[in-house]
Amino acid sequence: MTRFVDVRNMIRWTAARGPERIMADLIDYLEDDFRRWPSFDKTPRVASHTPFGVIELMPTSDHETYGFKYVNGHPSNPARGYQTVTAFGVLADVHNGYPTFLTEMTVLTALRTAATSAMVAKKLAQPDSRVMGMIGTGSQSEFQALAFRAALGIDTLRVWDTDRAAIDKFLRNMAPLGFDITVASSAADVVEGADVITTCTADKTNATVLTADMITPGVHINAIGGDCPGKTELDAEILRMGDVFVEFAPQTRIEGEIQQMPADFPVTEFWQVLNNTAPGRTSAGQITIFDSVGFAIEDFSALRYVRDSIEGSEYFETIDLVANPDDPKDLFGLVGALSPLGS
Amino acid sequence: MTRFVDVRNMIRWTAARGPERIMADLIDYLEDDFRRWPSFDKTPRVASHTPFGVIELMPTSDHETYGFKYVNGHPSNPARGYQTVTAFGVLADVHNGYPTFLTEMTVLTALRTAATSAMVAKKLAQPDSRVMGMIGTGSQSEFQALAFRAALGIDTLRVWDTDRAAIDKFLRNMAPLGFDITVASSAADVVEGADVITTCTADKTNATVLTADMITPGVHINAIGGDCPGKTELDAEILRMGDVFVEFAPQTRIEGEIQQMPADFPVTEFWQVLNNTAPGRTSAGQITIFDSVGFAIEDFSALRYVRDSIEGSEYFETIDLVANPDDPKDLFGLVGALSPLGS
Repeated sequence: MTRFVDVRNMIRWTAARGPERIMADLIDYLEDDFRRWPSFDKTPRVASHTPFGVIELMPTSDHETYGFKYVNGHPSNPARGYQTVTAFGVLADVHNGYPTFLTEMTVLTALRTAATSAMVAKKLAQPDSRVMGMIGTGSQSEFQALAFRAALGIDTLRVWDTDRAAIDKFLRNMAPLGFDITVASSAADVVEGADVITTCTADKTNATVLTADMITPGVHINAIGGDCPGKTELDAEILRMGDVFVEFAPQTRIEGEIQQMPADFPVTEFWQVLNNTAPGRTSAGQITIFDSVGFAIEDFSALRYVRDSIEGSEYFETIDLVANPDDPKDLFGLVGALSPLGS
Repeated sequence: MTRFVDVRNMIRWTAARGPERIMADLIDYLEDDFRRWPSFDKTPRVASHTPFGVIELMPTSDHETYGFKYVNGHPSNPARGYQTVTAFGVLADVHNGYPTFLTEMTVLTALRTAATSAMVAKKLAQPDSRVMGMIGTGSQSEFQALAFRAALGIDTLRVWDTDRAAIDKFLRNMAPLGFDITVASSAADVVEGADVITTCTADKTNATVLTADMITPGVHINAIGGDCPGKTELDAEILRMGDVFVEFAPQTRIEGEIQQMPADFPVTEFWQVLNNTAPGRTSAGQITIFDSVGFAIEDFSALRYVRDSIEGSEYFETIDLVANPDDPKDLFGLVGALSPLGS
C-alpha cells in the first residue's frame, strides 16, 4: 500500500506544524541532500511545452529511494481562476520499484522553493541582512518572507507588484506575522536599502523586472521567476556585475536567467559552496545572484521530509496504487477469478 | 478533483467488462492514436537504472491531453514475492496543467501490451493464423493469448517456460477459456507449426530464447521481452532473416532486440504500416518481426480508454491531488487561515 497525503491533509499538516518551522526543518533536509549531491542521479527535467504553459516531470534517485514530481507552469492560469503551478510527487523503493508515498505538492513546492532560496541566502547574503525587497507578491511571496526570517532573520520587507490586489492579499496574510512591511511605489523603489532582493514574477516572457542601475554593492539577488526557456526577469548586465550561483548548471543554462548568456558563462553550483569546495561570498561588496529554477533533488528532500514527518500521525491515508498478486506471475488470476471470461 | 481508479476498482472493472472485450476495444483506441502518430510529443522514456532493475517515466501529449506512466522493471522481483512490473498512470489537461485522472496500471499495462501486440499482428501476421507458440508463461502470457484470439482468431497455443510452476499457472488460468493448448518440451518444440511466435521472458540479460534455425518462412515473431538495454531474447541472425517493425525507432534502438544491430539497421515504424505509407507483409513467405518495447502513446491510449469507460460507473473515486485556492494567488491563505503562525 502507498501512503497518500491529499490537499486537505497537506493543509492540516502545514497549519499544525507551522510553515516557518517546516521551512526551517526543510533547510536541514535540503542541506543533507545538497551535501551528497554527487551521489544523486541528475537529469534535466522532462518538459512538454504548449502555447499555454508547460508540464514537467522531475525525477531523481539516491539509489535507495527514487522520487519524482509532476508540475505544471501556466502563467495565464490565475486570470482564469487556476493556480499557475500545481504539483504532486511520489517516492518509490529502488530495490523493488514499488511506489511508497504519494503527496500533493502545490503547497509543498511553495515551501521547498522558499526553503531552498533561504538555504542559499543563508550562505551567500551578508550575515547581518535584515531588509528584503520583493518584486512579485504572488503565490510564492509569503513563503519566501517566512523562510528568510527563519534562516536569516529578515524582519523588514519592501514589496511591489503590478497587481494591486496581489499586494493587498500579501499585506492581509502577513499582517499577523510581525514583519515591518513597506509597499514600494515601483520596482526601483523596492530595492532601496535592501540587503536581499527577491524577484518572483510569473510572466512567461523575457521580462526585465530588475535593471543594472537598481543594484547596489553587497546585495544578494534571489531570482526565482526566471525558470523556463523564454522566461527571465533580470537585465543580462546584472549577471555580469556579480557572481552567479545555480542548482544544476545543465538545467539552469536552458531555463534560468543565464539562458541570456553564452554557454560558457561562469557559474558555481551551490552544493560546492555548501561543501566548501567552491567560494561563496568573498567580500562585503560582492553581488551574489542565485539563479533559481528548482531542481528535482529539492523535491526529493521535501518528499523525504513530509514522509518522515507524517509517520505515526493522522495526516495521511493509504491507497492501493499498484496490483500485487500473491503469486507474482499470476496477474491474470486477479481478474480471471472474478470474471466469466471469453468473448 | 482527480478521478482515481485503484487496484480494487481496476480489477472489478476488468472482470466485469472482460479482458478479451477490453483488449478488442483497446485495439480501436490504439489504432486511433497510431494513425495520428505524428501529432504526438514523442520522447524516449526517462529511465533510472540500478543493479536491481529500472524505474521509468513515459510521458506524451497530443496537445489537448497530457499523459504519463510510472513503471518499474525488476526481473528479480518474482523470486522475492513482488511483481516484475508495476505501474500507475496519469492524464492531465494541457490547457491548465491540472491532473484529471490517476489509475493503477499494473493490470492495465498487461492489457495494453497484449492489445498492442495483437494490433500489430493483425496487420503483419498471415491472415489465416491459428497457432501461436509462446515462450514464457509469466504475467503477460494469458493477456497475449486472449488478445490474439480477439484480433486474429488464434485458438491453438504451444507453450513453454523454464519455470514449470508458471506453466501450471497458465494452464489453470486458461483451462476455462476454450483454447487448444499443448505444453512443448523446449523452446524449439514451441515453434513447431506456429503461425505466430511470442517471446515474453523477463531475464535482464542478453538471452537467446529463439535461434535462427527455429524460424520457418511466413512466421510472425512477436518479441515482447527484449525491452531495455542489455535485455534481449532473439538471436541477432533472426533480425536479418525478416523485416523488423518497431514502435518508435529512437527508443527501440536503445531498448529493443535491435540494440544488437548497427545504428542504421533498417526498421519500419508500425504507424506507417497502419496508415499504408510503408509496406507491411508483402508475401506469404516473409518473416515479420515486431520488436516491441512499449511506448508512451500506448499508455496514453489505454488511459483514455479507461477514463472514457468508467464515465458514469462505480469504478472510480475522486481524490484531491492538487491544491486550488479560490484566489489563485493566495496559496498561503490556505494554510495561514488555519494556523497560529510565527516561529
